Amino acid sequence: MDQAKQDELKKAAAKKAAALVEDGMVLGVGTGSTVKFFIDELGKKKEAGLTLKAVVTTSSRSQKQLEDYGFTVSPLSEVDQVDLTVDGADRVDGQLNGIKGGGAALTLEKNVAVNSKKNVWIVDESKVVDHLSGFALPVEVLPISCMQVKKRLEDEGLKPEFRLEAGGQRLKTHYGNYILDLKLDRIPVPSGLADYLDHTVGVVEHGLFLGICDQVIIARDNGDIEVRSR
Amino acid sequence: MDQAKQDELKKAAAKKAAALVEDGMVLGVGTGSTVKFFIDELGKKKEAGLTLKAVVTTSSRSQKQLEDYGFTVSPLSEVDQVDLTVDGADRVDGQLNGIKGGGAALTLEKNVAVNSKKNVWIVDESKVVDHLSGFALPVEVLPISCMQVKKRLEDEGLKPEFRLEAGGQRLKTHYGNYILDLKLDRIPVPSGLADYLDHTVGVVEHGLFLGICDQVIIARDNGDIEVRSR
Repeated sequence: MDQAKQDELKKAAAKKAAALVEDGMVLGVGTGSTVKFFIDELGKKKEAGLTLKAVVTTSSRSQKQLEDYGFTVSPLSEVDQVDLTVDGADRVDGQLNGIKGGGAALTLEKNVAVNSKKNVWIVDESKVVDHLSGFALPVEVLPISCMQVKKRLEDEGLKPEFRLEAGGQRLKTHYGNYILDLKLDRIPVPSGLADYLDHTVGVVEHGLFLGICDQVIIARDNGDIEVRSR
Repeated sequence: MDQAKQDELKKAAAKKAAALVEDGMVLGVGTGSTVKFFIDELGKKKEAGLTLKAVVTTSSRSQKQLEDYGFTVSPLSEVDQVDLTVDGADRVDGQLNGIKGGGAALTLEKNVAVNSKKNVWIVDESKVVDHLSGFALPVEVLPISCMQVKKRLEDEGLKPEFRLEAGGQRLKTHYGNYILDLKLDRIPVPSGLADYLDHTVGVVEHGLFLGICDQVIIARDNGDIEVRSR
């Protein structure tokens, strides 16, 4: 599919998500190529009179785009709860469980998501899988014990690899931590792995988002916009 | 009991712990009033010829004291594994489970502890309890979602309160996070609470050290030095 057609699809999905946004909401905005179109739609709604109580976001790119449309962006620490968060995902399965963290912002993304009443993901068809697979699972780890955590994950057969910058040095997250990408073909029991990672000392957060997404809006290659709800 | 007598007791416990230190070890050293005497004992052993492979520590105070005795202190990230860690504890129960974090260094302490083959705690009698109680449980939280986490813990009846500096502002940990102290009279099911906190997004680490301590050396008020092993 050519870029123009793919963009049309993403725009249609973004429009569907923007229809969920209501006056007076505290809105959470993620990042990604489809979310970019969602913010464009928000801009149009703002021009048409939309007023939000507050907007929080998980990326500086989205923040800039929102500010360009005249929205004031607040940190999550300054709102009680988010009413609706619209974000992308790197993979989403049949139970609306997902993998996120391709952009290394998983910790902030998960903190926004779990404090949102409703989470909607907009994705293109390539992200939709029957079972979580096809994308390395990011794990954010404290530098101080990263080698020990890496060894532990290796011993469990989880194939961790440090995410690197273009220059070859380890990528540092916003919080000063490293990312270990688990290069797994498929995650057999996501809840079991999430539980293991939650209990692993030195792991700050991981990219398994289970039971968090309420609705996924899928831009299908055939032009359909499919909505799946939990 | 007067200070001098109490110090004598702590010294005796420290000496018992120092007897576990062997040539060629990677040694972990915690902090606290009894650990201070332990480092003094290490200094004596060094003078008598002790050579360690490496020393890691969890506090700048202990680091300074170790360096004053001529030890070179390494960060945990530069050693594979610690052979023996000697630390204090704020509370220890009959199963050698404990509460740590009174000094706000729980995250580093737990990272060192879980990467140590053997953990020995030296405490005075006042720290020993049948069931974990009598000391607020520290929970290290990310600033970005601290208010939401606090509310969640409040809703669970866990009585969180921000730890404050002398000036009244929130204490920031070494990792730039806040401490919520759970002001619980008693922790009824420590493993259940630990599990809940491990799963709570926004919690970096907590002060429940369960199944970590292998041996506790207790300086009893009556002058006895009691050793309990798992």
